[in-house]
Formats: sequence, structure tokens, C-alpha cells
Amino acid sequence: MVISEKHKIIIAGIGPGGEGSMTREVWRELEVCDTIIGYTVYTELMKPYFPDKEYLSTPMRREEERCRLAFEQAGMGKRVVMVCSGDAGVYGMAGLMLSLAPEYPECGVKVVSGVTAATAGAAVLGAPLMHDFAVISLSDLMTPWEKIAKRLLLAAEADLVICLYNPASRRRSDYLRRACEILMTVLEKECICGVVRQIGRDGEQAEVMTLQRLREYPADMFTTVYIGNSQTRMINGRMVTPRGYPAERAE
Amino acid sequence: MVISEKHKIIIAGIGPGGEGSMTREVWRELEVCDTIIGYTVYTELMKPYFPDKEYLSTPMRREEERCRLAFEQAGMGKRVVMVCSGDAGVYGMAGLMLSLAPEYPECGVKVVSGVTAATAGAAVLGAPLMHDFAVISLSDLMTPWEKIAKRLLLAAEADLVICLYNPASRRRSDYLRRACEILMTVLEKECICGVVRQIGRDGEQAEVMTLQRLREYPADMFTTVYIGNSQTRMINGRMVTPRGYPAERAE
Repeated sequence: MVISEKHKIIIAGIGPGGEGSMTREVWRELEVCDTIIGYTVYTELMKPYFPDKEYLSTPMRREEERCRLAFEQAGMGKRVVMVCSGDAGVYGMAGLMLSLAPEYPECGVKVVSGVTAATAGAAVLGAPLMHDFAVISLSDLMTPWEKIAKRLLLAAEADLVICLYNPASRRRSDYLRRACEILMTVLEKECICGVVRQIGRDGEQAEVMTLQRLREYPADMFTTVYIGNSQTRMINGRMVTPRGYPAERAE
Repeated sequence: MVISEKHKIIIAGIGPGGEGSMTREVWRELEVCDTIIGYTVYTELMKPYFPDKEYLSTPMRREEERCRLAFEQAGMGKRVVMVCSGDAGVYGMAGLMLSLAPEYPECGVKVVSGVTAATAGAAVLGAPLMHDFAVISLSDLMTPWEKIAKRLLLAAEADLVICLYNPASRRRSDYLRRACEILMTVLEKECICGVVRQIGRDGEQAEVMTLQRLREYPADMFTTVYIGNSQTRMINGRMVTPRGYPAERAE
């Protein structure tokens, strides 16, 4: 698809941490754009690097408004980058933007991917996602808890490594405990797990622990959680899932 | 963990495509290192950008040898970057490197994450991974097919979006068909799916189609495949999964 340079919107994931976690393509799009739009926390992160851009934002929970702002600005002939944390296509703004795009046929939209928290946090812990895995959000803001609980149970039965986004918030302080209790109906309580807080930012913390200990872990909204599969091991303090199943090796 | 600059090995994902898909941190590590080690395809990609580095590689299937080479070079006091396609921690070299690390206590190993094919291909297709998803490899080289089949079935029952890596090879030309037939025991044959070939490279191709059509799709080893969940739609030719389940909205 050819998108004219005018009326162009880039939806860009800026990675989970500092500017180092941004891709070179996203950086270049920020360099050449007129306007940067995003949730305030992320636009503030960009200002020191791109002080001469126009910045626009809307608060949390005002996502549709933020998207329409992007289309309106692009409709005025500006080149717009909408920034999201991590990857724009993983619990980010890409879906809503593309759902609204048919209302703004004069605008061209391109998604540019970034490093999502699942892989960035995995690198801090070691290599937990080396084999098949599931990414599941514990937020029940837009998904009923019964659906989340079923996904957890089936992912554990499938022996997938599980990465949890949004494991807790002020309102949902016991959700990680509830998730662990569901997982413990299938998994051993000694199953190797890991947590990373503030990935790539000041105060980054990581810890490897058992599922039993994870159940008591005080996660917050800046935590990403990993539950190993049956093969996951702790090696030199790191969480490592082997690439395959050597004992049952097919060839 | 503090890693001395000497005897240091960085395991870096270079993204799935050109240099634009590399993070700024990975680029800087390549700039300051002495030696770049990797599968030949990836070391060749680096040479035009970093012509003055020492390059070492081993062929496909010689992964352990490649890892030991990295530790030996670092043990000689060189600063080494091992490059992997996509993210080093998703079917990459990070797991094997960390498993061997205890044999080389003089070396410090750091994993630096990159953009994995799942999210990069998703950006090309639209926004298929906006909600909970599973990443499953169809390669049965190190995992028995029965295990893969079970994971496919449970992921579909969990209504997870599914991203398939390694959907086919010369030896496994019918594996995507077999996977689709398993998925069709649970999913509607009109379920929205997508494929991307050569993500971020010359000849990149993407197509959105039904599960029924996907069953006949001639995937190759350069293809990444996406199977939507019950909410996934085609919007303006793109594959989009909504962020939540508005009809069942919890609050």
C-alpha cells in the first residue's frame, strides 16, 4: 500500500524502556514528523529528544478522543506519529486506530512495530519465552474474568509459557493471586516463574521464584509476570526455557 | 548484575527485517563490539553497516558450536555480540547461551531484546495481536507433533489469537494444512486469518484470508501466520482484533 506523505499517521511502539529500546525506524519517523500524539507519560518521554515538535495528548481512558485527534491533525496536512508504550499492536492503540480509519479515508495509517514488554522483560529475566508461549492480560476492564480464567487454565494445560500483562492495579490488587490459584490446579507449585518491574527504566527489578511464591508477590501495574512451562529451569539465577524437548526428540 | 566490559557477550535480536527494525541499543552494542557472531545470513546483513568488525559464524544446526565460539572469543578479552533474527529470546539463541554460561564463569552474558516476527508481521497485517494471544512453532524438530497439536487445540478453545512460527519447510510442506484442520475442529472456517512473508525485507507480502483458505495456502519457511480469535475482523483490508469484548463489558 502506498501512503502519501501528506495526511500520514504512523502508529509507533516506542518500546518499554528508554530511547534505546526504540527501533531506528520509529526514531526516524519521530525525526521527520510534525506532531507527536500519545498518552501524556509517553509524549513527555519524547520531548527531550524531539523538542521542536508539536505535542498533543489526552488522559488515560480517553483513547478514542486521542485517535480522532490524530486523524484530525493528519487531515490538516500534518505528518503525525501516535506513540504507544511497547508495541502499538499488543494492548496498544493500533486496533482502535485501524477501526476508526474508514471514517477518515483521506488519511493513510501505518503501524510500525516496537519491542513489547513480553520480550523485553524476558531478556531481563534470561530466556523464559524460548518455546511456545501465551500472552494474557489480567485486566477485566474490557474482558470478563471468566474468559481470562478459562484462558489461564487452557494455556497451563497446553504447557505454554505464560506472560501476564496488567497483573494488578489498585482496584485489582488480588488478581495475580487469583490467577496463580487457577494455574496451581494444573501446574506444580514449584514451577519456575519470574517478575520484572519497570522494564528498561530507572528502578528496574527482576526476580525468579516458584509459582507458590508468585502467588504472594505484590505485583503492581508496572510488573510483567512470567510462568514457566514444565521444562523451564533456573540457571545461574536466570529463568530459562529450553528450545525443545530433548528427551522426546523427534529426530 | 554488573558485567565487566571485558569478557562481555551481548545476545542481540536484530529484528526481522532491515536495519530499521533494530533497536538503538542493539545498534550501539554493534558499534562498540570487537566481534560479531551469528548464523551466516545475519552476519552478512551486518557487514555493510559495520565493515571493520571481526565476523565469525557457523552453519545452521551448529548452534552449540556457535555459542561456544562466542564464549571462547569473549574469554580472550573480546567484546562479542551474538546476533539473532527477530528477538534472541523467542526461538533464538538466548536459551542455549544461558544454559552453557555456567561453563564459562569468566564471561558475562546480557540479552538485549529485539522486535520479534509476531509483532512485526502483525504491524504489516494491521492489528491482529491486540488481545490475548499464543505463539506456537509448527517445527517438530525438537518438539513431538502430538504436543504441538494439543497446544493448537487448547489455544483455539481458549479463543486466543494464534501466531504460528515455522509453518512449513521443504520437509514439512503439509504442516500448515494439518494445523488448520486441527483448528477447524474448534474454530469457524470463516475465522479471519493472515499471512506475512519476508517481513520487512524486499518482496514483503501480506494477505488476509479465511481459515478455510489458509488451509490451502502454500506457506514457506519465511512465512508468519496469524489465526484470529472470535472477535477478529477485516477492516479496510486489514486484520484487526478488538482490544476487548464490548458486548460483555465488565464495567
